[in-house]
Amino acid sequence: MAFEPIDYLPYDFANRRHIGPSPDEMAAMLEVLGVDSLDTLIDQTVPKSIRQEKPLDFGKAKSERELLHHMRVTASKNKVLTSLIGQGYHGTVTPPAIQRNIFENPAWYTAYTPYQPEISQGRLEALLNFQTMVSDLTGLEIANASLLDESTACAEAMTMAQRVAKSKKTAFFVDRDCHPQNIAVIQTRAAPLGIEVIVGNPDKMDASAVFGAIFQYPGTYGHVRDYTDHIARLHEADAIGIVSADPLSLTLLKEPGAMNADIAVGSTQRFGIPLGYGGPHAAYMACRDAYKRAMPGRIVGVSIDAHGNRAYRLSLQTREQHIRREKATSNVCTAQALLAVMASMYAVFHGPKGLKAIAQRIHRKTVRMAKGLEKAGFKVDPQSFFDTITVDVGPLQAAVMKSAVDEKINLRKVGETRVGITFDECTRPENVEAVWRAFGITEKDDKFEPEYRVPENMHRKTEYLTHPIFHMNRAETEMMRYMRRLADRDLALDRAMIPLGSCTMKLNAAAEMMPVSWREFSRLHPFVPADQAEGYAELIADLSAKLCDITGYAAISMQPNSGAQGEYAGLLTIAAYHRAQDEGHRNVCLIPVSAHGTNPASAQMVGWKVVVVKSAENGDIDVDDFRAKAEKHAENLAACMITYPSTHGVFEETVRDVCKITHEHGGQVYIDGANMNAMVGLSRPGDLGGDVSHLNLHKTFCIPHGGGGPGMGPIGVKSHLVEHLPGHPSTGGVQGPVSAAPFGSPSLLPISWAYCLMMGGEGLTQATRVAILNANYIAKRLEGAYDVLYRGSEGRVAHECIIDTRPYADSAHVTVDDIAKRLVDCGFHAPTMSWPVSGTLMIEPTESETKAELDRFCDAMLAIREEIRAIEEGKIDAENNPLKNAPHTMEDLVTDWDRPYSREQGCFPPGAFRVDKYWPPVNRVDNVHGDRHLICTCPPLEDYAEAAE
Amino acid sequence: MAFEPIDYLPYDFANRRHIGPSPDEMAAMLEVLGVDSLDTLIDQTVPKSIRQEKPLDFGKAKSERELLHHMRVTASKNKVLTSLIGQGYHGTVTPPAIQRNIFENPAWYTAYTPYQPEISQGRLEALLNFQTMVSDLTGLEIANASLLDESTACAEAMTMAQRVAKSKKTAFFVDRDCHPQNIAVIQTRAAPLGIEVIVGNPDKMDASAVFGAIFQYPGTYGHVRDYTDHIARLHEADAIGIVSADPLSLTLLKEPGAMNADIAVGSTQRFGIPLGYGGPHAAYMACRDAYKRAMPGRIVGVSIDAHGNRAYRLSLQTREQHIRREKATSNVCTAQALLAVMASMYAVFHGPKGLKAIAQRIHRKTVRMAKGLEKAGFKVDPQSFFDTITVDVGPLQAAVMKSAVDEKINLRKVGETRVGITFDECTRPENVEAVWRAFGITEKDDKFEPEYRVPENMHRKTEYLTHPIFHMNRAETEMMRYMRRLADRDLALDRAMIPLGSCTMKLNAAAEMMPVSWREFSRLHPFVPADQAEGYAELIADLSAKLCDITGYAAISMQPNSGAQGEYAGLLTIAAYHRAQDEGHRNVCLIPVSAHGTNPASAQMVGWKVVVVKSAENGDIDVDDFRAKAEKHAENLAACMITYPSTHGVFEETVRDVCKITHEHGGQVYIDGANMNAMVGLSRPGDLGGDVSHLNLHKTFCIPHGGGGPGMGPIGVKSHLVEHLPGHPSTGGVQGPVSAAPFGSPSLLPISWAYCLMMGGEGLTQATRVAILNANYIAKRLEGAYDVLYRGSEGRVAHECIIDTRPYADSAHVTVDDIAKRLVDCGFHAPTMSWPVSGTLMIEPTESETKAELDRFCDAMLAIREEIRAIEEGKIDAENNPLKNAPHTMEDLVTDWDRPYSREQGCFPPGAFRVDKYWPPVNRVDNVHGDRHLICTCPPLEDYAEAAE
Repeated sequence: MAFEPIDYLPYDFANRRHIGPSPDEMAAMLEVLGVDSLDTLIDQTVPKSIRQEKPLDFGKAKSERELLHHMRVTASKNKVLTSLIGQGYHGTVTPPAIQRNIFENPAWYTAYTPYQPEISQGRLEALLNFQTMVSDLTGLEIANASLLDESTACAEAMTMAQRVAKSKKTAFFVDRDCHPQNIAVIQTRAAPLGIEVIVGNPDKMDASAVFGAIFQYPGTYGHVRDYTDHIARLHEADAIGIVSADPLSLTLLKEPGAMNADIAVGSTQRFGIPLGYGGPHAAYMACRDAYKRAMPGRIVGVSIDAHGNRAYRLSLQTREQHIRREKATSNVCTAQALLAVMASMYAVFHGPKGLKAIAQRIHRKTVRMAKGLEKAGFKVDPQSFFDTITVDVGPLQAAVMKSAVDEKINLRKVGETRVGITFDECTRPENVEAVWRAFGITEKDDKFEPEYRVPENMHRKTEYLTHPIFHMNRAETEMMRYMRRLADRDLALDRAMIPLGSCTMKLNAAAEMMPVSWREFSRLHPFVPADQAEGYAELIADLSAKLCDITGYAAISMQPNSGAQGEYAGLLTIAAYHRAQDEGHRNVCLIPVSAHGTNPASAQMVGWKVVVVKSAENGDIDVDDFRAKAEKHAENLAACMITYPSTHGVFEETVRDVCKITHEHGGQVYIDGANMNAMVGLSRPGDLGGDVSHLNLHKTFCIPHGGGGPGMGPIGVKSHLVEHLPGHPSTGGVQGPVSAAPFGSPSLLPISWAYCLMMGGEGLTQATRVAILNANYIAKRLEGAYDVLYRGSEGRVAHECIIDTRPYADSAHVTVDDIAKRLVDCGFHAPTMSWPVSGTLMIEPTESETKAELDRFCDAMLAIREEIRAIEEGKIDAENNPLKNAPHTMEDLVTDWDRPYSREQGCFPPGAFRVDKYWPPVNRVDNVHGDRHLICTCPPLEDYAEAAE
Repeated sequence: MAFEPIDYLPYDFANRRHIGPSPDEMAAMLEVLGVDSLDTLIDQTVPKSIRQEKPLDFGKAKSERELLHHMRVTASKNKVLTSLIGQGYHGTVTPPAIQRNIFENPAWYTAYTPYQPEISQGRLEALLNFQTMVSDLTGLEIANASLLDESTACAEAMTMAQRVAKSKKTAFFVDRDCHPQNIAVIQTRAAPLGIEVIVGNPDKMDASAVFGAIFQYPGTYGHVRDYTDHIARLHEADAIGIVSADPLSLTLLKEPGAMNADIAVGSTQRFGIPLGYGGPHAAYMACRDAYKRAMPGRIVGVSIDAHGNRAYRLSLQTREQHIRREKATSNVCTAQALLAVMASMYAVFHGPKGLKAIAQRIHRKTVRMAKGLEKAGFKVDPQSFFDTITVDVGPLQAAVMKSAVDEKINLRKVGETRVGITFDECTRPENVEAVWRAFGITEKDDKFEPEYRVPENMHRKTEYLTHPIFHMNRAETEMMRYMRRLADRDLALDRAMIPLGSCTMKLNAAAEMMPVSWREFSRLHPFVPADQAEGYAELIADLSAKLCDITGYAAISMQPNSGAQGEYAGLLTIAAYHRAQDEGHRNVCLIPVSAHGTNPASAQMVGWKVVVVKSAENGDIDVDDFRAKAEKHAENLAACMITYPSTHGVFEETVRDVCKITHEHGGQVYIDGANMNAMVGLSRPGDLGGDVSHLNLHKTFCIPHGGGGPGMGPIGVKSHLVEHLPGHPSTGGVQGPVSAAPFGSPSLLPISWAYCLMMGGEGLTQATRVAILNANYIAKRLEGAYDVLYRGSEGRVAHECIIDTRPYADSAHVTVDDIAKRLVDCGFHAPTMSWPVSGTLMIEPTESETKAELDRFCDAMLAIREEIRAIEEGKIDAENNPLKNAPHTMEDLVTDWDRPYSREQGCFPPGAFRVDKYWPPVNRVDNVHGDRHLICTCPPLEDYAEAAE
């Protein structure tokens, strides 16, 4: 009998797993939209003029199993040696309980940035623990909840110092013992801002010539020096003293606060975060209380909710998404939340005693190493160290390094004659002996008397991690339950759609995530020899090629480790290009008024003047105004920065004109890739006229948001810009680096690569089409109840839609905030609020949501509209109603219910699950209270007791 | 300066991670107990006379990191080839979303068996899906929620057939095409029950001579045969027809129900469950509705709760924990719940179309294989097949097998001249070609026309998996949320203590669990050549050696894959020993009245007579009665079965006497190892006089309970019994096997090994000591409020304590059930109820619980006592009170509250978390309703709608 194969592809990842709506559901949705096919809808939405010519073709898409096999083959090309290279990166032990329950748990890794505090209390608590840990270890009053990496943290500290220093000098001193990548990133950042960087010996620093100075502690070659006097000299000159400190060393060593430092920065990588070939890791920044309002990055604070109960929130939020545009001095917009959470849990897991014991073990082994070398006649430098020493071996440097590699150990090449050795918590006695063998020492030390190689005056004298959270019971049972409790307080993608416009919260598939945990990807030091990272090289090359195909660019730089970082790197590339054409004077950047705040901030950071271009009535760029301003600034036009499709969610048909005008006046075109999820496979920024774009891999390419980071913002450029891309001290290149590691946060790249490989060109294109379908379906269903702002010429929206809630402020005294909080009652994270237009909600469902979930959301929104109408019609009280009292907590149900609506109405609006309802742990959080009474470390225990009363 | 190392060992797994109470907490607890040290408490608890002489010494305990390294080295000694061996075990793709969200998620794997339905609705739903899937695929009305493995399921089917057959014959027919391990386990099981097993050609079966028959479908060598006529003949003879069927094949082939089979069994391994060198996997059993009350194993059913809402529960529970002792015919007490859940999710993930497509792909590849072989002149057997063919290669068998191994493929050795090839969903075109090369075929088939090699009359004609759950949207986003919702409905160890007496719900550490997912452990077929499983061999040898040290036995058999299976294997071993001594007539087994129900059931299964021994007043064995019965049955005494410490939680000082008496009268001593957690490092059953014991690795040795399985019950024996341990067709041995795979469920063994390696001898001993401390601390805190029954001579309990709730039935009309359900309100799983004494609660906290959690539990219990007192004193209503209405749901809070106590009192009794409160999804489940209206498949969707109304 003939074979009649069934019409079903069980391993089709794109259409069966990644894309939410099933074929049947899509048909039903298209019917609601009144179109006969998805093709028709796309034709109505994406103008023919901007469509790409050839479909994406990456060959046959891989199944999940094929993908994992392919990943394993690639991974096996990375060689995992023991790296004793140091230079800011260290071997560390990720506690398995943290790996399994946080790093590999979608409840943690799929969460969004905690802008909606009511549904983010779990990770806010973990991040507050992080801040407390940093504040304690550094001895400074205020800490933020992470920066991108140590090098950018150094650069941020420099610009922050310039903001707060009374000295108005323009020079900045950098300790020559800073890690090379820190010096390089500082130099990159300083140049366009006109800051002169003086690299030198701190003892010879002229404090009166600078607005600030940064010291590495311990130094990159191991020195443990006291900077108290240097900082005092800086203070005398009204300048700022910054210490970049290894937090683990601070468990033994005098802390920056005790040296009177103003700012401390550093990396928390060695607190249990895998090396990952360079990232992601959480950097930290702490400062004196006086400077807190100048500190970049997110700060978690303690406030109260509507019932006066303790509640956490992001403090001083104005400094972030709402970056002050023309005055911006930092474009920091991403933290490394997931990594900060892990580092904080590592501290909770070990407690102060555990951390100190770990530091002592490392120091003891380093002393043993040094003594063995000294006994054999080697000259070991420095005399005072924590975990790092260097040895001058003269012409034998290469021989010793090679001999170490033969022992499966990487040492650090320092200059032409020296070798660096840095120990970490993974160092074992066998490693010590293997290093000795690499130096030709075969004799064993008979008995080793532990001793400190840190002078008494450099010992830490103060306590740290005194808060009860760092003294909780450390049994795994207790830790596991603590992590679960925190996770349960939050609402992440594993429970509900997060329809955040411009954030593209799509599926982070398990198959995409799994390889990130593999040792071949996670255990590589960023500065290992290239022949140990051939798997990464292959991955990066292939992913780059695919991203070039997708964008129409000639090359990709993976270095920027956030979207804003990508913008900055892209503009630096343009600036370098202009300089190479002897057009270095070009310094005007045209930016539409609707741009994301990071655009002008990034332009500011490369020293450009921002000229704002008007919007037309319909939200599009006003091309006449654009042309006029381009003409006016033709002499100095450096670039324009546009977003496509626009931040209003529309495919503007004039995009090619805008690019053409820019080019005609000597400028380069930067197309912000934040909305690439509406373009992949349909349209290529490079074809439209773009010269540079960044790609938010954590949006379009499936890297999870991690509760507020990590992110990745690689940039694509046209061929004329390739030679001007960021370089790096470890890999070369003409330009300076923008990030600490040459490939940003490379251990995330398997995720995006996996996505591309399992989707294939056709699948990626279909994802874009369904993202557009889902957004239009929502727009259609909400039509009539809400005004949908900004549509294309045929009445369609792109991959997101903006609905107007401003009318209800007048008609019912209902704000966009009220609606957002009411959505929590319905079991949803709110859409993006008041951006790009105040008083609106921007909804982006992504392709990964099913019709059922879209309907649940629409039902909730429609019911909210009816509640508003009831207020408008005077049927319910204007102040005491479900919207104003939202979100409702379980606690509300327990206490007396004195509301003019029922418990049922309050707590179970349409959309809310019944048995599986998500309950926020707090009522609406008071923002004003939080900013007025800024508390950014864990409150003392008695405060908890009070709050409970 | 000298080095003063801090007194803290950060990597001490035993004392910092596994054991709950910190040193400070332990000191506080000892003070409450009024003893000066843990040594003193142990001396008061564990009689000197039974203490072991030498402390356990396994060398230095490993840190988590060292353990994982060691595991990796061991794992690398297993070689992962592509196994096309078949014989009931198949390559399969575990969907990554299921692996990450179930298999690697403590919310699923740390749950207990769903005896308390109110806190188990999530996994009960998943298991109901499993039953529905099995029922649909087999075409039989009722299915259970898993058995241990296919072979034991075959044996269970045989004994069930004997129970239900009208024919009272004693012979049972077995298709010679059954898998060899199925035949062997049937034979093992049949012998002591006096069942004659006739293995033969079904076409020549004498139906009138047997009470039942079993057929393999497809046959072990690939044949697809219709058994309709055979079954008809059996029915004519009042005998039962059983089909052991591959469930995947049933998506294409005529189902057992359509052949009028009475019972179907099989393995669901190939539904996404890793091979794991033989297990664990979930076997299934389905039967006609008429026979449901004779079916062994757990059956999930649909009932209602106190408010009339739908609720799931285990049906017909009397058949299980309460196994009818003297009449027992099965000792089945463990299911493979976690694996059944995964298999059911695999079916949900693929749906009927997906499963059929997978089956078709496999069949198509098998046909292609066959055609290629035929074209090259090989004789392929059978003509009609699904996924398996055999080829007669004459004297070249070894050469072909070897040549295949060179191609990284394992084929099956069939007889001396044939080779078996079985394909699965992992088979790729390259594999087909590699097999051809092994047969010397280098020519490729140019174009392959797919065709069926299944005759039309064997095609399946009926629908299956028609329930909406198998047609839900299959996007990973939706699946992930479904799995999360189900998990959230349940209360597992990741949220609270599960103080189940006799179940030892201790920490399942992340580091212990991780290696189980590694391909080197998970992808081995059970019948691979030994040189491909050297890592397993090393692991099994070392773990066995350690367990021998711990128990005082000479050897361990890893074969039994549950505790009850261990008992059975142990008694078989004893019986074989007696036979070898020409004492085969010995058939009396002395069992104390307090024994676990599986003890007499197991004795029954080896054909022994159970003689019950009385208990003394204090719960101990009545030694006089024991002696009297031993003397009376001296001629025929086979064994005694005792539990140590006793099921009453006491270290009986007379244990050596009991053993001595048994030996003096020619019997062997079986010591049940269920309570080993009170003995490890302190006392060895082998030293006390035991000849055999089983060890519940899922209790004492950290294998998680998985929501009701997997378990492992290896047995240790004295040297004289070693030669009588179970054998296996694949590995040899004199005796028959008790399980399908030679080492039971070996992929779980890394967990127990990891535990031993990270604890070390000292750590294991300390765990025992702290388990005793924790139990005594609870007993002390509850003293006065509740009577603690059964204590040792110095007033101490062992690792668990029994409290008496019988008085409150009279005084306040409060049952043990009321207290158990009220504990749910407090956020706890109830202790073991009414066992070993009706009306009591047996509390076993284990060493992994912290003092804070013990206190939370004690606070809850004390508050419950006060509630009882309030009833006793007439202060609250005897029928409408928090105890009778427990557990309270969130739904109770929403509706009108017409109770004589407050919402607060109802829902937040002492112990309950506030923000993090666990809410059961249903009110108290009605057991009687469920058994009266037995529904064991997913209810139709309209029923859901009704329930919601």
